Amino acid sequence: MSKIQVRTTLIYEVRQPTNFLFNIGVEQSDYQRCLEEHFTSNPEVPIEACNVGAEGNRLHRAFVQPCELRIDYSALVELTPEVDTSCEVGETDISQLPPQVLPYLNPSRYCESDLLARFAFEEFGQLPRGYQRVQAIADWVNDHLDYEPGTTSGTTTAADVLLQRAGVCRDYAHLAVALCRGIGVPARYLAAYAVDLQPPDFHGVFEAFLDGHWYLFDATRLAPVQGFVRIGTGRDAADVAFATLNGVAILQEKTVTTVWADDAPHQDPPPADEAIATA
Amino acid sequence: MSKIQVRTTLIYEVRQPTNFLFNIGVEQSDYQRCLEEHFTSNPEVPIEACNVGAEGNRLHRAFVQPCELRIDYSALVELTPEVDTSCEVGETDISQLPPQVLPYLNPSRYCESDLLARFAFEEFGQLPRGYQRVQAIADWVNDHLDYEPGTTSGTTTAADVLLQRAGVCRDYAHLAVALCRGIGVPARYLAAYAVDLQPPDFHGVFEAFLDGHWYLFDATRLAPVQGFVRIGTGRDAADVAFATLNGVAILQEKTVTTVWADDAPHQDPPPADEAIATA
Amino acid sequence: MSKIQVRTTLIYEVRQPTNFLFNIGVEQSDYQRCLEEHFTSNPEVPIEACNVGAEGNRLHRAFVQPCELRIDYSALVELTPEVDTSCEVGETDISQLPPQVLPYLNPSRYCESDLLARFAFEEFGQLPRGYQRVQAIADWVNDHLDYEPGTTSGTTTAADVLLQRAGVCRDYAHLAVALCRGIGVPARYLAAYAVDLQPPDFHGVFEAFLDGHWYLFDATRLAPVQGFVRIGTGRDAADVAFATLNGVAILQEKTVTTVWADDAPHQDPPPADEAIATA
Amino acid sequence: MSKIQVRTTLIYEVRQPTNFLFNIGVEQSDYQRCLEEHFTSNPEVPIEACNVGAEGNRLHRAFVQPCELRIDYSALVELTPEVDTSCEVGETDISQLPPQVLPYLNPSRYCESDLLARFAFEEFGQLPRGYQRVQAIADWVNDHLDYEPGTTSGTTTAADVLLQRAGVCRDYAHLAVALCRGIGVPARYLAAYAVDLQPPDFHGVFEAFLDGHWYLFDATRLAPVQGFVRIGTGRDAADVAFATLNGVAILQEKTVTTVWADDAPHQDPPPADEAIATA
Repeated sequence: MSKIQVRTTLIYEVRQPTNFLFNIGVEQSDYQRCLEEHFTSNPEVPIEACNVGAEGNRLHRAFVQPCELRIDYSALVELTPEVDTSCEVGETDISQLPPQVLPYLNPSRYCESDLLARFAFEEFGQLPRGYQRVQAIADWVNDHLDYEPGTTSGTTTAADVLLQRAGVCRDYAHLAVALCRGIGVPARYLAAYAVDLQPPDFHGVFEAFLDGHWYLFDATRLAPVQGFVRIGTGRDAADVAFATLNGVAILQEKTVTTVWADDAPHQDPPPADEAIATA
Repeated sequence: MSKIQVRTTLIYEVRQPTNFLFNIGVEQSDYQRCLEEHFTSNPEVPIEACNVGAEGNRLHRAFVQPCELRIDYSALVELTPEVDTSCEVGETDISQLPPQVLPYLNPSRYCESDLLARFAFEEFGQLPRGYQRVQAIADWVNDHLDYEPGTTSGTTTAADVLLQRAGVCRDYAHLAVALCRGIGVPARYLAAYAVDLQPPDFHGVFEAFLDGHWYLFDATRLAPVQGFVRIGTGRDAADVAFATLNGVAILQEKTVTTVWADDAPHQDPPPADEAIATA
Repeated sequence: MSKIQVRTTLIYEVRQPTNFLFNIGVEQSDYQRCLEEHFTSNPEVPIEACNVGAEGNRLHRAFVQPCELRIDYSALVELTPEVDTSCEVGETDISQLPPQVLPYLNPSRYCESDLLARFAFEEFGQLPRGYQRVQAIADWVNDHLDYEPGTTSGTTTAADVLLQRAGVCRDYAHLAVALCRGIGVPARYLAAYAVDLQPPDFHGVFEAFLDGHWYLFDATRLAPVQGFVRIGTGRDAADVAFATLNGVAILQEKTVTTVWADDAPHQDPPPADEAIATA
Repeated sequence: MSKIQVRTTLIYEVRQPTNFLFNIGVEQSDYQRCLEEHFTSNPEVPIEACNVGAEGNRLHRAFVQPCELRIDYSALVELTPEVDTSCEVGETDISQLPPQVLPYLNPSRYCESDLLARFAFEEFGQLPRGYQRVQAIADWVNDHLDYEPGTTSGTTTAADVLLQRAGVCRDYAHLAVALCRGIGVPARYLAAYAVDLQPPDFHGVFEAFLDGHWYLFDATRLAPVQGFVRIGTGRDAADVAFATLNGVAILQEKTVTTVWADDAPHQDPPPADEAIATA
């Protein structure tokens, strides 16, 4: 059990009446309790919280007239991750998958698993089924991509990244998700706060459905998975953008802070590739 | 109120143990009552019905050993469409959209609304908001695409189609969906049986969310919307393929029959572009 | 007849032994005489001039060890453009095209005329053949694209730009070239120095083959065509990049200056869409 | 030295006046002498032979009114390939490449070496330079692609194929060409007749520039390189399509026959991966 304090500030120059959907609030579950939370705007505008999509992501919605808009969000979160150290986790037979998991086998905007299926099968189809196979995918992605901010954009897809071999966290996760789906393992994208991520920012990682649970993986290895605070999940980053705008507004500043909030010094994290069942 | 009889037969040569997900059963709702339904396989295999995804599509699942598999499905359906003849249907302000509708603004695998947003806004952004604007999109798609089987494949996207200007029903629907999302109108893909579709096959059309309801459109104009029997909806065709396979099986035959089942001769259908609120 | 002075300085941090191909020297022809020219490097390295490709572009080649490399190029050029003010220029029948022009009907890396042929034919196929039709293409590109630095990269193609509706001079030229080829008009990319281009940089424009000659067009309308000094032509920008590197070197600085060098004040340029036969 | 007889028949239904460019005539060089050649059309139409492009490909051009057009081409060819059995062939330093070879380092329509450069460098950048490295690329392509007619179309590119891992001879050659360019080895596409190709058709292979010469490779291994009769070379298949049409004509029939024409029975061919310097 550990506590983490997250904070983010977003400043927009709103030039025309704009509808904002913010996806920055932490998820609330048995494994992730929110002890305190503040969502404020300046100028004050009505903020509506709502749950969206199959995943029930918690969004904050606001309709804002032209102004300089400042959003401050903070939360104190207590995590009780279920750490499964055995790594003896198998795959669920596709015929036994819970129906609600099936859509995560479908290709999505940034994870074209239909295009990459043959590649995925060729590279990973013969490996022993289970946690280790998904870890092999995460490792392959880590080994074959270069982490280079600026090489990709908001429209870059898994197929693009597989070819160009460079990207950022979002691209790493997209490629891993597409490869998992390509071999028949349901996979989804997870937006998170992450302690010790450098430079501090929102993080993009992924989950695979194994043996009845969603397991968390980070193909970038940039931060310890024990320090992740979940924001939301989706088929890919399109579903969990930190802000979706309809109107005209320019992002002027974005700061993200994620730190351990325990009194006692935090113990060394276990190796980053350890299995964590999250739901 | 009208009755429609649908039938489909699928024959597969199953070469290796294969998991099938069939998406051929008709949807059941207040507007579409299923009076009779039969789903049989030969050889007999256990068939599990399940509801999948945010849309609750009803799928049939089977795990099949190597054999020649024949699937027969039939249903007698009674439709009571809500025909809104006024066409005075406006758009719901994005700030007022029900949360569960918001994901249908996101780009998806075959509807890259992020790529086409500027084009959509340029072509349709200035038109009066409402039903007529979505109809203008459907008309544009009909005017600018050539219906040519063989010009596209299962991986063809809205962006591909916008460039190459040819495709089939699925492509028409994808492009229309992407353009709607591009101007901020939630849109989704609908798989359906369709009376009088030539040649008989599953049909792909689309729905746009207007004024609190989903409205049905067919950019192909190939069959009367009054004769559509809904199978399922999704972000795009990836979510409602008539069959999704995991294993090795070759489709040998597919027949689809959709006919009016009323005793009395069916009256002339109203014009195909009439507004039909469907949910 | 007019004189133009061009200058460019390129500074590289060469980190590993690198082969450079510079494509910055002005073309020499009956219409464009080079009165003075200097190509120097610091540190001094052997520079080899060579003529490359079907177009005979004049390249400068150097193999450079790690260092800070500074390239200075300047030329004084006298232009005697053949201005055809009548605009009564027709198209050459495809069956009459000189053989050496035929490759400019083929699709190339950044000008996928095969993908855009149906679109091109639909938009421009019925217009009267000739100079005005190519001008209509240039106008369409100008009307439908937004000039926005940063929206495209070195791998952006005409098809990308047609969808996203934004780009820079290179993208404008690529799209126009692809559309010309799509309706059967040979077209090629031209790299040039351009007086009054803001901000000063290398410019990318295009030429179409009409009535036995190559005619110059600038879809961006950012600078007067009378002030263009030709560097080289190719199928697309891939053939006339200002520098092609093999090795590891980082561009630190690039400055380009292009000014009228006449004693007398320069007269007002004629409208930018005037026909100029250039070869 | 060996003799090969090639024949091809093309039958078109010409629906509107159409300009044809046929690229079916054999190349003539010191290594490939044409002893006899017939090019006939029925109905008789004027056929103009011309040499096109940087490669000087020999095309036959005809302008045809609506009719059923039959083209018969045959040639008896004597080959004296320069077989270099040592395989001790190095690479030419990029700084020493003849200028006319440099364009074959540029990306082209179907060989996006710019997109694949990082992949190529990662996979092949560290191998010993020379013939064996290009052979390693050809082998990799052969190992990782499945030869499956119907999986690709005329607009499929090397990047598409690298993702989807299936294609035909043209796709194999495109991918190999792109990978060679990606590591700095000039490469081009070669259209050829090929003895023993099953089913008989035009063949697509590639050449790499090594140690001052173009060397021939066939990534498909579908026919012995000793039995290839060269038609033409280009940056990719766009430059050497067997027929390029402008107008409306439907290909009704295409037959290609390529057989040994020696009196004595032909000896067993040497292994297909033997180095053959061809120009």
